[in-house]
Amino acid sequence: MIGVDWGTTRCRAYRMHNRVLIDRRDSDAGTLALAPSDFPAALRRLVDSWLSDGEDRVLLAGMVGSRQGWVEAPYVPCPVSLPLLAQSVIAVPFSGASARLVPGVAGHDATGAPEFMRGEEAQIFGTDITTGIICLPGSHSKWVAVTDGRIVEFSTHLTGEAYAALRQHTILARSMRGASVDLTAFDAGVARSGESGGVLHHLFGVRALALADRLGEAAGESYLSGLLIGHEVRAALGPPPAAVHVIAATHLADLYARALRACGATVHAWPDDTAALGLCRIAEAASWS
Amino acid sequence: MIGVDWGTTRCRAYRMHNRVLIDRRDSDAGTLALAPSDFPAALRRLVDSWLSDGEDRVLLAGMVGSRQGWVEAPYVPCPVSLPLLAQSVIAVPFSGASARLVPGVAGHDATGAPEFMRGEEAQIFGTDITTGIICLPGSHSKWVAVTDGRIVEFSTHLTGEAYAALRQHTILARSMRGASVDLTAFDAGVARSGESGGVLHHLFGVRALALADRLGEAAGESYLSGLLIGHEVRAALGPPPAAVHVIAATHLADLYARALRACGATVHAWPDDTAALGLCRIAEAASWS
Repeated sequence: MIGVDWGTTRCRAYRMHNRVLIDRRDSDAGTLALAPSDFPAALRRLVDSWLSDGEDRVLLAGMVGSRQGWVEAPYVPCPVSLPLLAQSVIAVPFSGASARLVPGVAGHDATGAPEFMRGEEAQIFGTDITTGIICLPGSHSKWVAVTDGRIVEFSTHLTGEAYAALRQHTILARSMRGASVDLTAFDAGVARSGESGGVLHHLFGVRALALADRLGEAAGESYLSGLLIGHEVRAALGPPPAAVHVIAATHLADLYARALRACGATVHAWPDDTAALGLCRIAEAASWS
Repeated sequence: MIGVDWGTTRCRAYRMHNRVLIDRRDSDAGTLALAPSDFPAALRRLVDSWLSDGEDRVLLAGMVGSRQGWVEAPYVPCPVSLPLLAQSVIAVPFSGASARLVPGVAGHDATGAPEFMRGEEAQIFGTDITTGIICLPGSHSKWVAVTDGRIVEFSTHLTGEAYAALRQHTILARSMRGASVDLTAFDAGVARSGESGGVLHHLFGVRALALADRLGEAAGESYLSGLLIGHEVRAALGPPPAAVHVIAATHLADLYARALRACGATVHAWPDDTAALGLCRIAEAASWS
């Protein structure tokens, strides 16, 4: 089967055989770059040779199922298990293969505030975690509580997008010079996030440290990154001893693992292509006609 | 005498007689819009008729004394009293009047992290507060502890600039539609800032509430404003019962007062032209030759 994790800025296609990933293709034709009528051709461009090889099932997940995507799939309300998600896949009109779409998940955070996910559910069910806390870092980081194989509660943090906006569009831009990651500065940012004053004060502190010649321009971005990830982790982390599963590409996973350990948590790292196995399992449970 | 509060985006000139404000002129020729050689002409344009009337002393404060300003004035380290500040004014070359510049103040926050101010010191010494907490809201809000007539400690918060960057350059822009202030939404944002999850999670919540049809587009900006001001106030406020002096233009002062009262503080509001009297007092203490 073919699994596709189709987000706003990237489209990742996986070819699976007996639950093993045998090929993958990436494209930057994210949903933001496509009109609804563009999706069939974009999918065909990416997986045409696999279809010619005989693949006849395609399961899609992610923002492709949003109102701005190909076909809008309703949200399934929490608690959500893999069988419930599989029962709720919807058909997508696509010639040349049987195509279906995984719905999103609607839930709430610990205070009862509304939350939504599209795509992360495939990553979550690609792990063998039945009970635990899963962190999926990114532009919109998600922290997900899974109990007895069900997604029960989650919260989204604007961390990645806030980093980009603050780094480019505030006075902090003057203290930044595109440079390689400075882990000492990252750690200093994480440590600062544990002090009093609040994140809005700590943010101005990036500028004040630079004015005081205590933060070099080359270290500014890493310090800011550590500050924001540190604030996210401290706010999201439960009381110690906490164990957190992190699903992300290596670079981001390493930074989050570093911040988590600095905050006293134990970390289990998962590769970011867990979505491939998750889509495979959902397809198997979907009793595809 | 003439007092000038010259910031990055605005220049405010005050004509004072016997400590009474008798005239004022504003210009948008902030320091960011001027090269060092532009300052004398910009000042003359603003106050020429007052000089013709016989005014012969001009005292400047604000970013005009920064490295990117007219003449760089060094920072005076905390604790800083009005007499110490007056002793430290420096001469500025300007034909037609005796011009001087108030230095900035260098200090630290409660954790010992470096802090700087330029201009707020004139506002602070324009009040009759000898001991108390002063909040000066803005792009870079300042919270200042004054004891026995001395500025002893302060912290800066990136609140106003973070609001603008997040409102325009993240997914939150989709939930905003320029509209008048919605006080109910502002209060809801302030209340949310008191719940668990952290500001980065609460920020994404603005989008989630909109997706859940629980926050109208016309209310998005006010909710975001309440959220950020609420987080600033809660992080900066000491243990209750707290009393805070707020120095700001009416619109911003009203919002901060509202947030402060929601967080249990007592509020004393001061007009934003306290800088005029502060400059007058500094000039008197400066034993101007």
